[in-house]
Amino acid sequence: MEKHIGEQTVRFQNPPSITATATIVGQKEGEGPLAKHYDIISNDALFGTDSCEKAESEMSRQAITLAAQKANLQLEDIQYILAGDLLNQETGSTFAVRDLGRPFFGLFSACSAIGEAMSLGAMIIDGGFANHIIACASSHFCGAEKTFRFPLELGTQRPPTASWTVTGCGAVTICAGGVGPYITAATTGAIVDMGIRDANNMGAAMAPAAAHVLVKHFQDMNIQPSHYDVIATGDLGKIGSELLLQLMNEAGYDLTNHKDCGCMIYDTQKQDVHAGGSGCGCAAVTFGGYFYKQLKTGKLKRMLLVPTGALHSVATIQQGESIPSIAHAVAIEGSLN
Amino acid sequence: MEKHIGEQTVRFQNPPSITATATIVGQKEGEGPLAKHYDIISNDALFGTDSCEKAESEMSRQAITLAAQKANLQLEDIQYILAGDLLNQETGSTFAVRDLGRPFFGLFSACSAIGEAMSLGAMIIDGGFANHIIACASSHFCGAEKTFRFPLELGTQRPPTASWTVTGCGAVTICAGGVGPYITAATTGAIVDMGIRDANNMGAAMAPAAAHVLVKHFQDMNIQPSHYDVIATGDLGKIGSELLLQLMNEAGYDLTNHKDCGCMIYDTQKQDVHAGGSGCGCAAVTFGGYFYKQLKTGKLKRMLLVPTGALHSVATIQQGESIPSIAHAVAIEGSLN
Repeated sequence: MEKHIGEQTVRFQNPPSITATATIVGQKEGEGPLAKHYDIISNDALFGTDSCEKAESEMSRQAITLAAQKANLQLEDIQYILAGDLLNQETGSTFAVRDLGRPFFGLFSACSAIGEAMSLGAMIIDGGFANHIIACASSHFCGAEKTFRFPLELGTQRPPTASWTVTGCGAVTICAGGVGPYITAATTGAIVDMGIRDANNMGAAMAPAAAHVLVKHFQDMNIQPSHYDVIATGDLGKIGSELLLQLMNEAGYDLTNHKDCGCMIYDTQKQDVHAGGSGCGCAAVTFGGYFYKQLKTGKLKRMLLVPTGALHSVATIQQGESIPSIAHAVAIEGSLN
Repeated sequence: MEKHIGEQTVRFQNPPSITATATIVGQKEGEGPLAKHYDIISNDALFGTDSCEKAESEMSRQAITLAAQKANLQLEDIQYILAGDLLNQETGSTFAVRDLGRPFFGLFSACSAIGEAMSLGAMIIDGGFANHIIACASSHFCGAEKTFRFPLELGTQRPPTASWTVTGCGAVTICAGGVGPYITAATTGAIVDMGIRDANNMGAAMAPAAAHVLVKHFQDMNIQPSHYDVIATGDLGKIGSELLLQLMNEAGYDLTNHKDCGCMIYDTQKQDVHAGGSGCGCAAVTFGGYFYKQLKTGKLKRMLLVPTGALHSVATIQQGESIPSIAHAVAIEGSLN
């Protein structure tokens, strides 16, 4: 069987198993509709540290450790950790794994990090290079605001198109063999940039990247969207989701089974998050918490997870650049037929 | 044959071939001792753009395009680009590949980026997921100073322990099959942090990480340093290199065949670079320019490339954190026996 099919997709020969997930979130996420699905809800935004950057690393360290534990593995059994976040120089992830002593691949694809980590992690396993890896992605509301926009202390008003960065970390233990759910395919995104320049409208910037990787996935796999019970994008939010459906419609695909983690993670009526949730943690905890259980219990048979990322920085926005975006599609199935 | 051996090493079953490299550097690097080995020396530090960030992306875009060309491939044949740099949110790399339309994995491991990219790239090829990938790493002196230290306009004095960030990009085309040189093994580093807090002494921060991955590599492979003609670290500079030799000595290894790209890339007597060269581009262009030719012409039979990275950010330094470091070892052999 050919592993690389079509233009951008790999199909795994011996699909790696997701043997455990660990999800840790902050208070606001713990008040949202998915609250009961998380492993840990921390009402301390600083996670016992003295800065939001350290808080994110502590949250990730705990999630990685828990993901190994829940898979009945020692940390020493984890052969690679692949992780990404939003902070400058990825310090959310690097300081998280600093004391863990495991081989580490730092990744950056903004909020699509869990998609990149799961895709590469599954390749490492199916390629025969490891038996157990952990894929991890995190974000922290305060850290992201400070990094990309304004320190919270300024009380800057947020426009209605803005999304709310999830304080959360999802870690996913991926193993050779196992009883599933299985990662069966991955379509790696190319960067798409349709000229959106408003860093407070990331949904609009990312929707074309999500549409692009979805079309490639359906073409490469020669399937229709209905192949999946759910197609879950990462953090398009309300505005980005509407745009995605429109773009897919124009491309000839009817996405009736679409959900967006950014629209699911908060109660958008009551929680004042404007366009929805965003951040690397958004797709990571929504998948690791909610969707993983749905797959585990058979309520979902097949899903396509499509984390989305906006690849700008403060410097590129200040220099008048538009926002390049990317999305990675990961197919996950409850059982192998 | 087991692909994962020992604790942190993979040995490739069908070692991927490095079919081409492309190297582009700035003026200062073009005045250094390795000048004749680079493909392009640009005397325009801005590479025709209006900012140092855009300059880095333009340099990388050209290097990636050239690396495909020199391998007699169309850009469309490149199934994945893996790239990393030092700028916030990796915009050096993402804006470089923005218009190339290729599936993209963004990586972050600071100045060890080319080691991470070549390790993962070789796994993707040997795992059967692609036939052609490009691994790429870049840095730009002005961008790095602005990101990590001070804008150049301030004219801030640099201490003698400081290194000089290389303006350069190295892109490496890695393919299934081919005539070599071959990537035969990769030891992925774990983070090591010995408590160095001085961001102007990265050599001292990184030397323990280099020593750690070297010891793991020798143990996992059951070989001695003399197995290689050259063991080339990325950017330890003078101070870090001395520390490395001392640490390796204490671990029972005599590193008589050690070179450091940071000590090779500039004339440290004449070019006023203090401790030596650094940055993602340092190992990338020194390998892609100088060492690759040595392997190609048989002057070197086996080398171990060990790019080194300091994983701090401005925020972590300001918060009093020490500098976690990492190094990735990649074994490259001219021919397979």
